[in-house]
Amino acid sequence: MARPIITLTTDYGTSDHLVAAMKGVILGINPEAEIVDITHSVAPYDVLDAALTVNQASRYFPNRTIHIVVVDPGVGTERRPLLVSAGPQFYIAPDNGVLSLVYEREREALTVRHITADHYFLRPLSNTFHGRDIFAPVGAALSKTLQTASFGDPIEDFMRLTLPKPKVNGNTVKGVVLRVDAFGNLVTNLTQDDVPSLSSENGKVRVLVGNKEIGKVVRTFAEGAQGEPVALIGSSGFVEFAVNKGDAAKALNANRGAEVTVELK
Amino acid sequence: MARPIITLTTDYGTSDHLVAAMKGVILGINPEAEIVDITHSVAPYDVLDAALTVNQASRYFPNRTIHIVVVDPGVGTERRPLLVSAGPQFYIAPDNGVLSLVYEREREALTVRHITADHYFLRPLSNTFHGRDIFAPVGAALSKTLQTASFGDPIEDFMRLTLPKPKVNGNTVKGVVLRVDAFGNLVTNLTQDDVPSLSSENGKVRVLVGNKEIGKVVRTFAEGAQGEPVALIGSSGFVEFAVNKGDAAKALNANRGAEVTVELK
Amino acid sequence: MARPIITLTTDYGTSDHLVAAMKGVILGINPEAEIVDITHSVAPYDVLDAALTVNQASRYFPNRTIHIVVVDPGVGTERRPLLVSAGPQFYIAPDNGVLSLVYEREREALTVRHITADHYFLRPLSNTFHGRDIFAPVGAALSKTLQTASFGDPIEDFMRLTLPKPKVNGNTVKGVVLRVDAFGNLVTNLTQDDVPSLSSENGKVRVLVGNKEIGKVVRTFAEGAQGEPVALIGSSGFVEFAVNKGDAAKALNANRGAEVTVELK
Repeated sequence: MARPIITLTTDYGTSDHLVAAMKGVILGINPEAEIVDITHSVAPYDVLDAALTVNQASRYFPNRTIHIVVVDPGVGTERRPLLVSAGPQFYIAPDNGVLSLVYEREREALTVRHITADHYFLRPLSNTFHGRDIFAPVGAALSKTLQTASFGDPIEDFMRLTLPKPKVNGNTVKGVVLRVDAFGNLVTNLTQDDVPSLSSENGKVRVLVGNKEIGKVVRTFAEGAQGEPVALIGSSGFVEFAVNKGDAAKALNANRGAEVTVELK
Repeated sequence: MARPIITLTTDYGTSDHLVAAMKGVILGINPEAEIVDITHSVAPYDVLDAALTVNQASRYFPNRTIHIVVVDPGVGTERRPLLVSAGPQFYIAPDNGVLSLVYEREREALTVRHITADHYFLRPLSNTFHGRDIFAPVGAALSKTLQTASFGDPIEDFMRLTLPKPKVNGNTVKGVVLRVDAFGNLVTNLTQDDVPSLSSENGKVRVLVGNKEIGKVVRTFAEGAQGEPVALIGSSGFVEFAVNKGDAAKALNANRGAEVTVELK
Repeated sequence: MARPIITLTTDYGTSDHLVAAMKGVILGINPEAEIVDITHSVAPYDVLDAALTVNQASRYFPNRTIHIVVVDPGVGTERRPLLVSAGPQFYIAPDNGVLSLVYEREREALTVRHITADHYFLRPLSNTFHGRDIFAPVGAALSKTLQTASFGDPIEDFMRLTLPKPKVNGNTVKGVVLRVDAFGNLVTNLTQDDVPSLSSENGKVRVLVGNKEIGKVVRTFAEGAQGEPVALIGSSGFVEFAVNKGDAAKALNANRGAEVTVELK
């Protein structure tokens, strides 16, 4: 049988002992676990940033992967720890909305459980590091059995974040920049379906980021001239803005939250 | 049998080939090794920073884990390479004090050996990269046999750093900030035992970082108001200062070395 | 049999989902793969930077290792995906010169194939993320069979970067800084063979970085005085400039591309 895969997504950074402590706990419980880092550079305390990253990464992992997601500003308070079966995979996270996009994607095969089986937790249980004391040991224990029911009962009132939706008004669609990636590409909440008029045939649409007009719609980054911001459908299916070998966020002086307008001429 | 675990802690960063060269060497010698990064972002040349991180992380790893620690400004000089059996785990590091906290923690089951069996070393042996040429191959070889005696003889005169201890004067305890973590939390050298009066019942103690008074002692980060620096017992058992969803180091304009005062009223 | 090793070198950074998506794809195809990060912090779009890092790291990996290298500003254009057998290892990368140093090192046992077997690719195939859609699945498939011929035919007209070569003029050798590492050490294109006069016997040569004279040639970093830039033969066999517990790039105000002069007195 293949080794069980456990992924980690946190805002812990990689300069402290936090991530390693989680890995040590996991390997102590299940030495066969294959641990994969998704990222530990989620913007600190930023549940939406983590939600987007986990949703994008998790869909490429094999069935039965266990994703541990710890962006958890409410650690130690009454917020519940969750174990989620979503489609063919598992997720362990605090009940703060960080799995909202997974809930939406896998809404047809979704069970959300409140983890109450506290004999799996590390003792003494800290108030400030549940990544180590709750989420890691539960993930490792689950990887040995995949028996979700032994961790707690299903709930329905789990927290969901409302993501900004595109707004259509006549010939105009308005969206928003959701993320800036490491290259400085701006990733929006608009999909190809939202803006079918956006294609590599230019001249039919007017595209704006804030009040700056994007002159060109392309298929590949390399089609952009030096320093020229372009629009394209990115690899996750969303409209992105990029600069060939450059940084679109800087070139457009735009960031997360910037308004995006696509107008059919 | 479970795969042997080898952890790595260095100040090499992750943008060069250095860490990968170590991993290649390890896997060439023991393809079964499970390599776990503790961190490669130790502050450059900072032996104390590494000592704290290794001590915090290692305690959560299973028995027989081998920790390779390479923060080594003296590489290539007469400083000795060490192989340490400490409690149920192993450590490989230069003799510069980087294992001081492990020595203290495991003082009842501690053997420190000077690695002299140079047939384990890579050839040609460089003067500047013993992570690759000495520490990685020794760690990988050890992971196959766990026979420490074949690497060198025990020594007693290994180097120990003196860590700052809390100072008690009447009703006042003075400590110091040892580390700032990735969230900006300030981690001190004071434990719950040093300041039993510090609890979530406020009003009984006066707490200062430098000359700034901390108004509140809490159990969880979320109890702090926006922007308000609070004190709490952190997940490693030390007094910490934090800001709910914020950065205490910035808020208090304090850094490593800052004086901390806890005064019983 | 040992688990197959697949390394990853990219300019994707580690804060997005990109690297994790590649790992998920690989583990879905070959759950036995052992994935090792070389680095994801190649300077964005910088093919030379990646070429140097891959060349330095790969030589320390075991036979049959598969190195996936994705620094790919031309993604989605006509640039070809390559599968390279070079000595005892394999490389998968775009045809943009990123493997130039590997070609040179392994020129006696080199086969470069154009990957045309597109049934290995992910569908739908994006125009902007071939790390996930082409390079990862091809690497994972190769790790199961090591049958390179099934991926495409050999080609001869693959792209090679010309690296700056040392220039000898009488008693003077001129080179260039190729990289600045995470410590601020300056790594040049001059080897011990290029400057046999450079040894730890000082006083026989005059060494300049730009127009700043380096006073001392050393064997180990620790021989330098505080703040003093020194020259040494680094662990990869190249002349380096360093500052003991310091940052030579800052001290010399020099960067990649800086001219280096070694003059026999």
